[in-house]
Amino acid sequence: MNTTPTEGLNTIDTPFLAVDKSRFNANIARMRAYLQPFNVRLRPHLKTIKSVPAAALVMASKQDPATVSTLKEAEAFAEAGYTDLLYAVGISPQKAPRVLALQRKGVNISILLDSRQQAEMVVAFCREKEVNIPVYIEVDCDGHRAGLPADDPELVTIGRLMHEAGVEVRGVMSHSGGTYGCDTPEQLAAAAEQERKAAVAAAQALRDAGVACPEVSVGSTPAALSFTNLEGVTEVRAGVYTFFDLVMAGVGVCKLDDIALSVVTTVTGHNQAKGWIFVDAGWSALSRDRGTAGQKVDQLYGVVCDEQGRVIDDLLVSAVNQEHGILSMREGSGKALPDLPIGARLRILPNHACATAGQFLQYHVLDDANHLLEIWPRIQGW
Amino acid sequence: MNTTPTEGLNTIDTPFLAVDKSRFNANIARMRAYLQPFNVRLRPHLKTIKSVPAAALVMASKQDPATVSTLKEAEAFAEAGYTDLLYAVGISPQKAPRVLALQRKGVNISILLDSRQQAEMVVAFCREKEVNIPVYIEVDCDGHRAGLPADDPELVTIGRLMHEAGVEVRGVMSHSGGTYGCDTPEQLAAAAEQERKAAVAAAQALRDAGVACPEVSVGSTPAALSFTNLEGVTEVRAGVYTFFDLVMAGVGVCKLDDIALSVVTTVTGHNQAKGWIFVDAGWSALSRDRGTAGQKVDQLYGVVCDEQGRVIDDLLVSAVNQEHGILSMREGSGKALPDLPIGARLRILPNHACATAGQFLQYHVLDDANHLLEIWPRIQGW
Repeated sequence: MNTTPTEGLNTIDTPFLAVDKSRFNANIARMRAYLQPFNVRLRPHLKTIKSVPAAALVMASKQDPATVSTLKEAEAFAEAGYTDLLYAVGISPQKAPRVLALQRKGVNISILLDSRQQAEMVVAFCREKEVNIPVYIEVDCDGHRAGLPADDPELVTIGRLMHEAGVEVRGVMSHSGGTYGCDTPEQLAAAAEQERKAAVAAAQALRDAGVACPEVSVGSTPAALSFTNLEGVTEVRAGVYTFFDLVMAGVGVCKLDDIALSVVTTVTGHNQAKGWIFVDAGWSALSRDRGTAGQKVDQLYGVVCDEQGRVIDDLLVSAVNQEHGILSMREGSGKALPDLPIGARLRILPNHACATAGQFLQYHVLDDANHLLEIWPRIQGW
Repeated sequence: MNTTPTEGLNTIDTPFLAVDKSRFNANIARMRAYLQPFNVRLRPHLKTIKSVPAAALVMASKQDPATVSTLKEAEAFAEAGYTDLLYAVGISPQKAPRVLALQRKGVNISILLDSRQQAEMVVAFCREKEVNIPVYIEVDCDGHRAGLPADDPELVTIGRLMHEAGVEVRGVMSHSGGTYGCDTPEQLAAAAEQERKAAVAAAQALRDAGVACPEVSVGSTPAALSFTNLEGVTEVRAGVYTFFDLVMAGVGVCKLDDIALSVVTTVTGHNQAKGWIFVDAGWSALSRDRGTAGQKVDQLYGVVCDEQGRVIDDLLVSAVNQEHGILSMREGSGKALPDLPIGARLRILPNHACATAGQFLQYHVLDDANHLLEIWPRIQGW
């Protein structure tokens, strides 16, 4: 924490990545409150925050379960004392030694399988090393990504293969990619229920075949906030809820005012004839993610807010170069450009928090008065 | 350089960012050879490589001119001994103190102006500090980005303003964004000539008004390799030519076999029914840049090569999640998926070298036998 009392939104060199700490805490509290009535554990996905000090707010205890998307994250969070990690990307055999190294340090680390070949390789590795690395088997609940449909006999084949080799099948895991295409509460609830059913059915198929499968892990932020029934589910994963973003607002699980992550930028010029305002945040800061492009309201490269974080209606980042962005009014809005002089500071709300955060080495955490509270480093690389 | 003799493409943990050193050197030599007959200086844009050891190959001498896109780059290259830097993004007034700090360390640093307000702020800053920070004025040669058209009277107004305040107008600078939309040598040559004419005319307008304007700086990789006449031009800027990428191949200024940058990835699974191969490189490694989307041949998220760097015809990265990519055959190719077992290593050629390189902390530099020669750290942040 290399901060001085005078530092804040108006003094830090732009572009920088700001976290509104009040919104961040409120988002974390909301997810806990939503899931509280259900008898499930939250296994937050730390791939969004990728930051040890941020995890201290997301996780109630270092013994609680968490999810990671890279071994670099697993190693960093393990180093910080977190003990229950699910590495939730289909395991690549060459990565098994790093997983084993974590296990040998006392981390309760599980890995993900999405095919029989992977399963065979993990079995071979565990036999060779005389170890047991617990696995989750990925269930494809809606055709959106890897994994096996709940009724695919291969699922049971994999389960038996692991079981017979003495490798623990810790559970099944699904990810409801389909919820990202929803935009009404009804659609979301239906997609979430479809995921729950698929995951529970897959676990049941394994148990019927004599494979214990204690955990049933479901999730994604939109599903996590849309479940009306979690019977048979033991844990829920979600990550982007900590910050939220424009895609989540488009899906309908947050409001723009809930988004806790923004890129702070400075106005550097104008082209009045073209209706353009130039800022010092380009794709190197915002990322090229255009997750809202397929949604009902396309937010282009981001929604522009004033320095207080208030949305400036219909002012969008309409184009990006490497180091500058162009702001213009939403096509058809009929509105005039606001008066934003050179040097004015603005905040850009991102399409996709994971992608935009990935462009930065650290977060600048601001209080409600826009003063810098802390700097949180982000975990980099793989 | 933390390498051992046995390290190489097959042993480094994936995903990693590989530089084919032979191709890199050949690309650098090609640009030098192309410009050699013209009486101009090359001012390489270091925003693509963003790496001090890489610059040692791009730059013949530390006294030669270079271009940067962030002050972080300027500071890193200055620290490494480079002395002639153009910070080629419209200056934000709040950044002037960092520019001045570099100048006071002996760096010949110039900045870019693209509006009268900026010019007034720079004049005010120079007066207050009693310094002279040389400026280039940006010329808009084709309506693609910031800057003033060569015949805009504002250009001369700005030039006079600086001149009268005793601030050196070092030159004019144009960037032919329009060349990125070309795909024949004739179009490229015409766009390059259009840029040259605009830049030379702008310089002449300034000189006619009594403003010296010694430098006329033009460029972009496609233009730099397409000029047939550089009369009146003193320097050419280009950056992506060092690596090239799929966008440049689509424009026609390189072949796929010239591309020196790739993301090395490992096959992690298959979905035969869907015709998918999973790899451990997603958007966090490849970036979300889809620069070829608007070209004649859309290469989706990247062209797949075998571990030797040979293109596998029509095998593309068709979708990306954060940590995995999906390979499939080009739609309509009618080809079957190649046999690529779990664990196989592949190289992905990127749409846009600057964006993909930006996802990594370092380059792994490989020789022709795929052995690791060096690790080049990349400059991060702003």
